[in-house]
Amino acid sequence: MTTIKDVAQRAGVSITTVSRVLNNRGYISKETRRKVEEAMTEINYSPNEIARALQKSQSYILGMIVPDSNHPFFSELIKHVEIYANEKNYKVLICNSLDQPEKEEKYIRMMKENRVDGIIMCSHTLDVNEYKKVNSPIVTFDRIISNQFPYVASDNFRGGELATTHLIQSGCKRLLHISGPLKLDLLANRRTDAFLVTCLRHKVSHHVIEGSQDNLTFEYFHNFIKSEIADTLSEYDGVFCTNDMVAYALFLYATENGIKIPEQLKIVGYDYHSFTRMLQTPKLTTIAQPVNRLGKVLSSTIINMIENKDADTINNSVVDVELIKGHTT
Amino acid sequence: MTTIKDVAQRAGVSITTVSRVLNNRGYISKETRRKVEEAMTEINYSPNEIARALQKSQSYILGMIVPDSNHPFFSELIKHVEIYANEKNYKVLICNSLDQPEKEEKYIRMMKENRVDGIIMCSHTLDVNEYKKVNSPIVTFDRIISNQFPYVASDNFRGGELATTHLIQSGCKRLLHISGPLKLDLLANRRTDAFLVTCLRHKVSHHVIEGSQDNLTFEYFHNFIKSEIADTLSEYDGVFCTNDMVAYALFLYATENGIKIPEQLKIVGYDYHSFTRMLQTPKLTTIAQPVNRLGKVLSSTIINMIENKDADTINNSVVDVELIKGHTT
Repeated sequence: MTTIKDVAQRAGVSITTVSRVLNNRGYISKETRRKVEEAMTEINYSPNEIARALQKSQSYILGMIVPDSNHPFFSELIKHVEIYANEKNYKVLICNSLDQPEKEEKYIRMMKENRVDGIIMCSHTLDVNEYKKVNSPIVTFDRIISNQFPYVASDNFRGGELATTHLIQSGCKRLLHISGPLKLDLLANRRTDAFLVTCLRHKVSHHVIEGSQDNLTFEYFHNFIKSEIADTLSEYDGVFCTNDMVAYALFLYATENGIKIPEQLKIVGYDYHSFTRMLQTPKLTTIAQPVNRLGKVLSSTIINMIENKDADTINNSVVDVELIKGHTT
Repeated sequence: MTTIKDVAQRAGVSITTVSRVLNNRGYISKETRRKVEEAMTEINYSPNEIARALQKSQSYILGMIVPDSNHPFFSELIKHVEIYANEKNYKVLICNSLDQPEKEEKYIRMMKENRVDGIIMCSHTLDVNEYKKVNSPIVTFDRIISNQFPYVASDNFRGGELATTHLIQSGCKRLLHISGPLKLDLLANRRTDAFLVTCLRHKVSHHVIEGSQDNLTFEYFHNFIKSEIADTLSEYDGVFCTNDMVAYALFLYATENGIKIPEQLKIVGYDYHSFTRMLQTPKLTTIAQPVNRLGKVLSSTIINMIENKDADTINNSVVDVELIKGHTT
């Protein structure tokens, strides 16, 4: 393995000079820098980042824990987190918790052991106190842990309001909302709060059925619709679904059973991730979360925390949403 | 920060004993191990993996370079690579090359600097010689670099053969194949080879139009169909598409333009990733690559190389494919 000594020898300069170039410290003439960099290329030298990380106690690695990296929302979020992190010279470790508390715990422990610089937490099965034990900076997606940890979220309340108002303005009189799991204190639950408030304000009959989040697959939602929704579906003329996969599963069930969409039943989803954008039958009416902005903001927030840039300016971030009118309303 | 010394003190054993427990070396009684582990939990000790990595010159990190982590195929592949790696105590760094050679180069350099233990290469824009310069173990997905680097692939030739034979047996007489980019020497090109050979063997009229891979998005394929395929589409009664997104874009174009699928035109895709499995309109006829197995095999191959388990047993892996009959043939 080539060392800094070999580089110094090749460039005809001192080891101190090479070290200065590497660490960008002290005065170095352009000419010397060029010589050192050429020498590095010639002898194929690469500085040992692990040794430097130990010295500086910084690893330039971000850990990102998601329920399922193959879910279209999280896969898109990961992409934008990674692209932004890379611009700032950070790397991203991906961990799939599969919504299992023991896996989530193991990942957090592992990240601590590896001195990951910061954690982006998008999986939320553990008790809030478990996260507080971690010493690294943490930013969460869609969950309030404590005021030590900023969160990033879309404006879930506004989203719920837009969806519900749209259904009411389209003439719906009996509304159903299929929510996410309400036992966890997630910011996504504000979609449900907004649904309730908006229905009350407009004096519209309404009902909420709680979905589970143990499993985020399409197969799960498809079965969920059949077992939990099908029996009472005829009582409603509009449904606000907490995510696009539920909305798509509901659309499929309805059309298979001769219910005309949107004439007899109107459906609004939430997400507008890559799957929904590709889907043409149907083009879903949905609330768009700007996944690219969410990813960038998660990445920049955690990097700002790590680099401690003006701690007072690090805040929770709420990203705007918008209604996308498709063919299901 | 708590140290190994604090653990020893708390457990009432020597530092050497704690070190033995940590490194799983030498004889340790069950009782002593329990005491040490309890002490670690009590004082919230976590071994500094960076320091250990430096000592052992192993980081337990795998780097995975993909064109786009949000593409449904790669997002599924990442998930299965990560789940398997995690079982073996490895972590996975994700890098999006976005099919830009300069980004791919930067990532490879970065991984070298971080002493990543091994690289899973799924993005292929660079010249083969660039990969040979890297000293770490590399496994590639779908590309032959040299016999130093094993590859993992689905049986692309068999897939092309199954798709083409199925179209011919369904009565097609004039076949089109929309291939991937043929300028790169990718194993996926064998789908095209198999298409040609199968058409020749059955004396069926055929034509190949080369797709580009600069951009893997659905929007790109949608436009590609309009600009490159639409004009001559009426000359064909069967199309084998190199991936499911192309097949879906073609289906949409055809139905929008009054071409009846499958009566007037039959379509076969390739992949059967999560997007295709969710898609119900249409259920695509396609060649299924078992993405979960591909992910596991990529992960286990690179870990075996890193741990140098019986080097002679490390081979290229070709994973079986199967035809999934949907509604487009």
